Amino acid sequence: MTPPPDQCEWFHLRLRVRYAETDAQGVVHHANYLVYMEQARTEFTRARGLPYRELEAQGVNLLVAEASLRFRAAAVFDDPLLVRLRITRVRSRTLTFGYRIEHEETGRLLVTGETTHVFVDGAMRPISAPAFVLDALLGRQ
Amino acid sequence: MTPPPDQCEWFHLRLRVRYAETDAQGVVHHANYLVYMEQARTEFTRARGLPYRELEAQGVNLLVAEASLRFRAAAVFDDPLLVRLRITRVRSRTLTFGYRIEHEETGRLLVTGETTHVFVDGAMRPISAPAFVLDALLGRQ
Amino acid sequence: MTPPPDQCEWFHLRLRVRYAETDAQGVVHHANYLVYMEQARTEFTRARGLPYRELEAQGVNLLVAEASLRFRAAAVFDDPLLVRLRITRVRSRTLTFGYRIEHEETGRLLVTGETTHVFVDGAMRPISAPAFVLDALLGRQ
Amino acid sequence: MTPPPDQCEWFHLRLRVRYAETDAQGVVHHANYLVYMEQARTEFTRARGLPYRELEAQGVNLLVAEASLRFRAAAVFDDPLLVRLRITRVRSRTLTFGYRIEHEETGRLLVTGETTHVFVDGAMRPISAPAFVLDALLGRQ
Repeated sequence: MTPPPDQCEWFHLRLRVRYAETDAQGVVHHANYLVYMEQARTEFTRARGLPYRELEAQGVNLLVAEASLRFRAAAVFDDPLLVRLRITRVRSRTLTFGYRIEHEETGRLLVTGETTHVFVDGAMRPISAPAFVLDALLGRQ
Repeated sequence: MTPPPDQCEWFHLRLRVRYAETDAQGVVHHANYLVYMEQARTEFTRARGLPYRELEAQGVNLLVAEASLRFRAAAVFDDPLLVRLRITRVRSRTLTFGYRIEHEETGRLLVTGETTHVFVDGAMRPISAPAFVLDALLGRQ
Repeated sequence: MTPPPDQCEWFHLRLRVRYAETDAQGVVHHANYLVYMEQARTEFTRARGLPYRELEAQGVNLLVAEASLRFRAAAVFDDPLLVRLRITRVRSRTLTFGYRIEHEETGRLLVTGETTHVFVDGAMRPISAPAFVLDALLGRQ
Repeated sequence: MTPPPDQCEWFHLRLRVRYAETDAQGVVHHANYLVYMEQARTEFTRARGLPYRELEAQGVNLLVAEASLRFRAAAVFDDPLLVRLRITRVRSRTLTFGYRIEHEETGRLLVTGETTHVFVDGAMRPISAPAFVLDALLGRQ
């Protein structure tokens, strides 16, 4: 469909690990990385001029269909993180993001991952990716 | 309005502390006690024959308007907890629950608290407590 | 190393979706499935006679190294879920669990997934899987 | 003990509501406000030159002993929030923070609250507030 978005640069979000996000092992609980990735997607859509909230208001939702994560090193409370994201695959009905989460100061790679999303309408029925959404997210036009 | 429900016995929910609910201090993160209390309310409404989900389906919601908690002792991962709850006050438009969260095996009191709720309709506008709701929750009928 | 644990039956945990686990799309937020899977592992270790808490007390931890999830259908507030789990791969230093999360009443398959864990000691250094752990988890002895 | 810190101005933290923090009512789940308040305390300690992580490294912890919240209006996904905080009471062994959470753009007051903390050492035993901590947090020196 759409050619691979090689041109896509990494977008990044800066955040700090909250106390509530750690667990008794003293590190960030692994489920929270999915939340960090989602926050990065939200900021990415805003940066591309099509905030996710506006997308929803227009009856377009991006459901998470698949997620995979590889945990390489742990983050602890108050660590400054860099959540890097880019679109790695575009299909007629799905979109895939790749992630690299790093410790901002040391540059250490903590987590890599990927999430694939399906486009659905307000009634949660699958739809083809609207052109205005792809144009915005892929930075075309 | 309605006389104080002195007759109300304590309802209780049993649960186990999940790893994800602990924090780097090695204990349950304090915000989770609000979640435990909410789960106890859900099970309480089911036990009274009016599951919260059904209440919502009928256009009645109970919004949390106030909450207070006193943290007396800590719980750790995998602790078996007893979340005790009872209705402590009924007004025309609000309902208050009192809680005592204990370690099930040692009986140690961990947290006490109170939440007050307002009745709202499906459009989130305040309404008077419907009679069928009070009848069910107060065990009248 | 250890032969594939074909003999392993599915273990299951029953749970109810909490209100706090839903999101504005009206369904369970996807990150919570990792928490459900973790809770299922905890109950699995207890059922096998080696509670995770005891494992930790003996200086053995199972860190999550990889996770993958496929979201097939959504669960909503108060849905009764069945989290099925089994060991799908055993290596000298890692253990992999497979999961199937279903709606308990309709039997509908909601989420499938896999998590791979590395054995570490109290200082978080990788170790070989202790024999007593494998014996318990694989139901040998 | 210490005179009331009238001089304390409101410190504030800006944040955006994450999708994962909403619930099926379409608004921020109430338990998350405790997390926002905690994040504001973390940033407050950093702004005062004594990051909470450093405090912990020196064997001083501030346990949450009490919390009370009043929910006045709801926030939704992606709302920009202002979490205002100030120290409202200082005792020899406890510290109390007051909070006002507002919608940053409309200025609407959403939540008010208070948390009281006890000072404990690394072994979680109550201690008197160390002078260097009070000096930093109260902006004396």
